[in-house]
Amino acid sequence: MLPIDPQPSPETLADRETRLDANDHTALKLWLRMMTCRDMIGGMLQRRLRCEFDTTSPRFELMAQLARHPEGLKMSQLSQRLMVTGGNITALADFLEAEGLLVREPVPDDRRAIRLRLTEAGQQRFGTIALEHERWVVSLFDGLSRTEQQNLHALLGKLKDAITRQASGGAH
Amino acid sequence: MLPIDPQPSPETLADRETRLDANDHTALKLWLRMMTCRDMIGGMLQRRLRCEFDTTSPRFELMAQLARHPEGLKMSQLSQRLMVTGGNITALADFLEAEGLLVREPVPDDRRAIRLRLTEAGQQRFGTIALEHERWVVSLFDGLSRTEQQNLHALLGKLKDAITRQASGGAH
Repeated sequence: MLPIDPQPSPETLADRETRLDANDHTALKLWLRMMTCRDMIGGMLQRRLRCEFDTTSPRFELMAQLARHPEGLKMSQLSQRLMVTGGNITALADFLEAEGLLVREPVPDDRRAIRLRLTEAGQQRFGTIALEHERWVVSLFDGLSRTEQQNLHALLGKLKDAITRQASGGAH
Repeated sequence: MLPIDPQPSPETLADRETRLDANDHTALKLWLRMMTCRDMIGGMLQRRLRCEFDTTSPRFELMAQLARHPEGLKMSQLSQRLMVTGGNITALADFLEAEGLLVREPVPDDRRAIRLRLTEAGQQRFGTIALEHERWVVSLFDGLSRTEQQNLHALLGKLKDAITRQASGGAH
């Protein structure tokens, strides 16, 4: 381990928070820090998924949604859950289908819809990667105690509820 | 405002947390919730930047970094601060240069490097957008009290320090 400077100067810290100045609002500081944490953790997980399983985070997250629904999910449901466009889902599905990890199926009672479903090979592949992925996530968060993790989870939950209210109410 | 269900069921909640099951680890729940908050807030800011200023979050964040450094920043510095590749910076810079908002300049004492600098028009444009953008961020976070925002900021700070240690020490 390298020695750590507990208060790295804004000039040496390589992340989005480098754009802050002393007058910026608490909420803006919080938003930049949230982006930084998400990007750092996401980047580390992405590199490990690439190196150890030759896959990507979007492919893994798509498989994770399907693994919870052995009967399959419609494109529109996946698009909403992953918060990405249908075109992106199509590109991910093409790749996973070519690898034999998922299939596309017609949806009974909805002739215009297509459902994606993991194959048995896909379920197994997801299980293998998910086990390791969860270990990485646990390790990345182990700088926080269990109580701190729960507090962070609760605060983000409150934030998420407030954002969801704003998004559905259109109040802001 | 629509009436809010304080505990939306996992089946109706449209986000990444839909992939959780009851046995998943606290750290994984936390990570999925962090991604969800970041994506929700990022999506709302991106839509507003697009609608009200015909710009994008990556362009805005690049301008934000340059606004803090009127003398300009090297491509390598920007790549590190924004945590994106040099190729992405080049594409963003092409666009902003065509709009007259930034210029590329040679770097004294480093003949292979290029520095990006905001023009006066770029500084003014950034100032206009940043004022409004900060208002949106404040509004998006106002479901949390000031104390809650400070607690969240501190917890994310502790997490970020731990991640930075892992990344530089390679201990995990």
